[in-house]
Amino acid sequence: MIKAGIIGATGYAGAELVRLLTAHKNVEIVWYGSRSYIDKRFSEVFGNFFNIVDEKCLDDNMDELSKMADVIFTATPQGFCSSLVKEDILKNTKIIDLSADYRIKDVDIYEKWYGLKHPTPEFIKEAVYGLCEVNRESIKNARLLANPGCYPTCSTLSIYPLLKEGIIDASTIIIDAKSGTSGAGRGAKVNNLFCEVNENIKAYGVATHRHTPEIEEQLSYAAGEKVLLNFTPHLVPMNRGILVTAYASLKKKVSYGEVKSIYESYYKDETFIRLLDENVCPETRFVEGSNFVDINFKIDERTNRIIMMGAIDNLIKGAAGQAVQNMNIMFGLDETEGLMQLPMFP
Amino acid sequence: MIKAGIIGATGYAGAELVRLLTAHKNVEIVWYGSRSYIDKRFSEVFGNFFNIVDEKCLDDNMDELSKMADVIFTATPQGFCSSLVKEDILKNTKIIDLSADYRIKDVDIYEKWYGLKHPTPEFIKEAVYGLCEVNRESIKNARLLANPGCYPTCSTLSIYPLLKEGIIDASTIIIDAKSGTSGAGRGAKVNNLFCEVNENIKAYGVATHRHTPEIEEQLSYAAGEKVLLNFTPHLVPMNRGILVTAYASLKKKVSYGEVKSIYESYYKDETFIRLLDENVCPETRFVEGSNFVDINFKIDERTNRIIMMGAIDNLIKGAAGQAVQNMNIMFGLDETEGLMQLPMFP
Amino acid sequence: MIKAGIIGATGYAGAELVRLLTAHKNVEIVWYGSRSYIDKRFSEVFGNFFNIVDEKCLDDNMDELSKMADVIFTATPQGFCSSLVKEDILKNTKIIDLSADYRIKDVDIYEKWYGLKHPTPEFIKEAVYGLCEVNRESIKNARLLANPGCYPTCSTLSIYPLLKEGIIDASTIIIDAKSGTSGAGRGAKVNNLFCEVNENIKAYGVATHRHTPEIEEQLSYAAGEKVLLNFTPHLVPMNRGILVTAYASLKKKVSYGEVKSIYESYYKDETFIRLLDENVCPETRFVEGSNFVDINFKIDERTNRIIMMGAIDNLIKGAAGQAVQNMNIMFGLDETEGLMQLPMFP
Amino acid sequence: MIKAGIIGATGYAGAELVRLLTAHKNVEIVWYGSRSYIDKRFSEVFGNFFNIVDEKCLDDNMDELSKMADVIFTATPQGFCSSLVKEDILKNTKIIDLSADYRIKDVDIYEKWYGLKHPTPEFIKEAVYGLCEVNRESIKNARLLANPGCYPTCSTLSIYPLLKEGIIDASTIIIDAKSGTSGAGRGAKVNNLFCEVNENIKAYGVATHRHTPEIEEQLSYAAGEKVLLNFTPHLVPMNRGILVTAYASLKKKVSYGEVKSIYESYYKDETFIRLLDENVCPETRFVEGSNFVDINFKIDERTNRIIMMGAIDNLIKGAAGQAVQNMNIMFGLDETEGLMQLPMFP
Repeated sequence: MIKAGIIGATGYAGAELVRLLTAHKNVEIVWYGSRSYIDKRFSEVFGNFFNIVDEKCLDDNMDELSKMADVIFTATPQGFCSSLVKEDILKNTKIIDLSADYRIKDVDIYEKWYGLKHPTPEFIKEAVYGLCEVNRESIKNARLLANPGCYPTCSTLSIYPLLKEGIIDASTIIIDAKSGTSGAGRGAKVNNLFCEVNENIKAYGVATHRHTPEIEEQLSYAAGEKVLLNFTPHLVPMNRGILVTAYASLKKKVSYGEVKSIYESYYKDETFIRLLDENVCPETRFVEGSNFVDINFKIDERTNRIIMMGAIDNLIKGAAGQAVQNMNIMFGLDETEGLMQLPMFP
Repeated sequence: MIKAGIIGATGYAGAELVRLLTAHKNVEIVWYGSRSYIDKRFSEVFGNFFNIVDEKCLDDNMDELSKMADVIFTATPQGFCSSLVKEDILKNTKIIDLSADYRIKDVDIYEKWYGLKHPTPEFIKEAVYGLCEVNRESIKNARLLANPGCYPTCSTLSIYPLLKEGIIDASTIIIDAKSGTSGAGRGAKVNNLFCEVNENIKAYGVATHRHTPEIEEQLSYAAGEKVLLNFTPHLVPMNRGILVTAYASLKKKVSYGEVKSIYESYYKDETFIRLLDENVCPETRFVEGSNFVDINFKIDERTNRIIMMGAIDNLIKGAAGQAVQNMNIMFGLDETEGLMQLPMFP
Repeated sequence: MIKAGIIGATGYAGAELVRLLTAHKNVEIVWYGSRSYIDKRFSEVFGNFFNIVDEKCLDDNMDELSKMADVIFTATPQGFCSSLVKEDILKNTKIIDLSADYRIKDVDIYEKWYGLKHPTPEFIKEAVYGLCEVNRESIKNARLLANPGCYPTCSTLSIYPLLKEGIIDASTIIIDAKSGTSGAGRGAKVNNLFCEVNENIKAYGVATHRHTPEIEEQLSYAAGEKVLLNFTPHLVPMNRGILVTAYASLKKKVSYGEVKSIYESYYKDETFIRLLDENVCPETRFVEGSNFVDINFKIDERTNRIIMMGAIDNLIKGAAGQAVQNMNIMFGLDETEGLMQLPMFP
Repeated sequence: MIKAGIIGATGYAGAELVRLLTAHKNVEIVWYGSRSYIDKRFSEVFGNFFNIVDEKCLDDNMDELSKMADVIFTATPQGFCSSLVKEDILKNTKIIDLSADYRIKDVDIYEKWYGLKHPTPEFIKEAVYGLCEVNRESIKNARLLANPGCYPTCSTLSIYPLLKEGIIDASTIIIDAKSGTSGAGRGAKVNNLFCEVNENIKAYGVATHRHTPEIEEQLSYAAGEKVLLNFTPHLVPMNRGILVTAYASLKKKVSYGEVKSIYESYYKDETFIRLLDENVCPETRFVEGSNFVDINFKIDERTNRIIMMGAIDNLIKGAAGQAVQNMNIMFGLDETEGLMQLPMFP
């Protein structure tokens, strides 16, 4: 059994990790970390775990935890994980960091967009960006894994093959993304109250959202050149789900079949990526509760653009599910272990 | 492998059966019946099954199906299953009927409340009412199983022990129930459109809802006398979940501990029933996606009444999950097989 | 023009008062009180008022306000208004208190249920309970008006005529109520976050909710005897609306027509009470955005009970609208002035 | 009093017309047309009008209606109004058509995108496109008014000034729009059921939505050249509201102040257009229930693009409200008459 510790277990992503790992046949959770709820039973904080998880929440002691755990998941605010990582810990255990601390290779960009001084930039180079379908080989030997952001996961997987194959013009990419409210976290903020979110849609972080440079970096690898793009997230009155609608100009005339072939050449063996049938638009309801990414596209000959669409469950493929997928890869397990829940609809 | 056929696979309960049975390690689905979608791929009707279920929908041919299947689930409107059941079929296969056709032992009551002539009353006596936690022994040998209604499951399990033990006055029971909209089915009706249901709550079927006699019959067995009660369902703007708030007068002064002990004596070994801690009210979000029933109660000394509360996922414990639980019992499998999904929140 | 000051203008009820009074042709708002947002423009807190209300929020200074205002609305937590009321203020201005401070005549009951020491019990006797359709005459001369709670308004109006006319047994009343989330206020609490409320229904405050004694007192006046009852509120995933489903045993056999006549004799001239047609259940969507109360009932001959149902918009007839209705009465205006917005659906 | 007839009164836009016109001091509704509900009381179809509107629904007889009414509103499917308009009718009455029949000047484009043969193209030239803030002068004398689509209203108003002033590159416009579900109408379709829409977001009509050529035509007038653009609508789980997020490349370097000045020069005297403060994103909740359009923008210097955002209530400014605004202009009334409802939040 892999002994896993979770720091930040009482956020939405942390609790989803608990849910997935509790049902994972190779894992035992040894630490439910939550500074806000120390000594409170985890199932009092998340009533769905009543009679299932009896443990109490513990403080965030990464040193102690590193001696007990084979892997530590940090589902914590930016700057937390990076303030604690050190060689002594990484010698004992693997770290899967769900925050953004080690996702961006250029520390200046990280510090500029996040407004933080990175405390341990010396580990950035070693950290592996855990977008499983793209970086599988590097993930296998990672000690420190940077689990991708929710928007970057959905955006990058939707666009990557077409950019890599030179079909679309990298300078024309516009990503319009929509997210359920669990992406905003469980903090007690007026803006996230039911009455504020319900019956509303709004954009936020326009031209300034911190997932922008993360997406740009990953797509730059695909393009082989520096990519700048527009990324606009929106808040949708639903619990879970991210939908990405991405636009780009085509560099040449392509047929539906050609584009489909490109996607298939990248993803046809990927368990968690589903390339939908022609003219079927991805919908978040059909991936909810699963680790799937539903992808499709539409060519608009009138404007010579292509519209790329992707849908994920932000808490699973966009956070906890991908973290488990990374763990599976890192520990040599079947990559789908513990992740084959079928999407639940309605 | 148990070969299972589903008639009515494209309703919400039917699709949930597909989801549960697809993940069930002892079951193979051999028939996706749907008169409305004959020859259409099941995954075109329910996009969550894309790449998971490739089969097409078939017509409702119970005779043919009975030769192929070890068990037939009928998730169909009232009057359908009962019009087709015959000895020849029951010799070949077991039937788990999710409709109300065989739930009520008194055919006059059935015909009065449902406004239907029962076509095969000769099978009513044989049919076993599949409330697993109450009728487990009879279920084991059932050929024809009447799967309980969603409201009756939640209502009966919440009230049963206190009535059986003579704590509450059977003549004072009032059940005020609230259900998510999936309980209204997938028919294209104006009343169930998003804009009609969202931002609204209403009672419906007041004093006339057809689950009333079903609850009354089950509670009559507990009381040892004929029970008449009020049952008022309400439609709530959410997808899944039933909450029951039931009221009754106490027949004698009892303490919290005494009542708790009674519930425990009935349910403490039941995997799917969770007796919550004192003062914790059941919430549908904490059972959503699972086969659990969360139960609790509150004594009001001022009025000498007790408030009994229960919560279930109407599509799982209230329909497909309980059907699978019954199948497990009928086929001698571990009763929890395929049903241990943890509740998904948020 | 009536000069009105609002203390607590940035809660949901306070903002609804702003909305109604801004559109009221006889009123000018002179004070947008909000301790949390002092010096912030009101329209920054509630973006719907952008370009409509330009004023800034002010501190809660009731002495100063009493010199400027003809009427002060206090939409504040329990204990606030009662801590400031004094004869000097009431000599200058009228007070309409939306909190519970002066609703309950028996100060011991108030102090017990609210867990507060009442600071100015000497004003309780003078205060008029502002249930307009019942207490219209006393309201006309009130200086200090206790605006009824949202649940008590809907509950009392639904039950009052039948109790007053001796049709129902006062000892058997059970009120099962459901409310939208705006009733929980705009405080930043985890329990009221979108993801916690959405896709959920729960009871709360079972047998302990503080609106219980308020309802009991009002119904006791109708019954002419002390009424004890059960009141169970539930939280519904919608913004606005309260639905009351109330149960009582009939004291004698009555027909539909007899009961209908009783309701009509009390309410047929009431602009804001709509007695629905037979078998039509009140729905919150059909009163949303209005000051209407929709009422109906169903006799259940099987159990000899009657089910009484009422629906209101909790922020309007349940709070700000009734406060304005009371103001209209107190100032001799047309009672419906500023309150004839039609319900908005969908 | 203006006598108004409504054909299609029992759709969501039709019912909103009823709501607005009922409260309009210069209007009397003389015809509640609804082929689906002939002889049924309008308030049985829309319960919010109980006790307010007592009339029954009538068949669609435009000839007869034209003799009674000063203005006819057609809130009907495409092809209906155009099949009935004739000179005899227009001599008697004015027509405000909420369908798309007369919005597009090039009949070939209409017929191609709508898949219909236009029955009366001879009236297209005369018809005035009723985007009030742009075409006010022509509207004054219109006999046949084409009321703009919901998406086109929000899109065009958000983009028009910048395009007209040559700030943005017309060939780069991408409009990503999001709508509440009332925009999908009140037809009984599975896709619009509560459980299908709730907890979901999806794009639809990608590169094929019929509002595309309408937006392109209006923006072409602004650009002085033919505009082709991408328009992608999305369905959001809420009742009302449209949010437009539009992207375009800047033709030259501009400052925030310069762009703001352009918007102000077009809209500063417009009652219904609110230019929000810097960095405040439009939100549909803050215009719900009103005729307002909230507009703002953000310059992204990194990509040299501008993001233009607009929010409306799709049933008011996007349909019935703008129709009333057009009626006010056509009849020489104050343009805001009957339209000054404040946005209702929450």
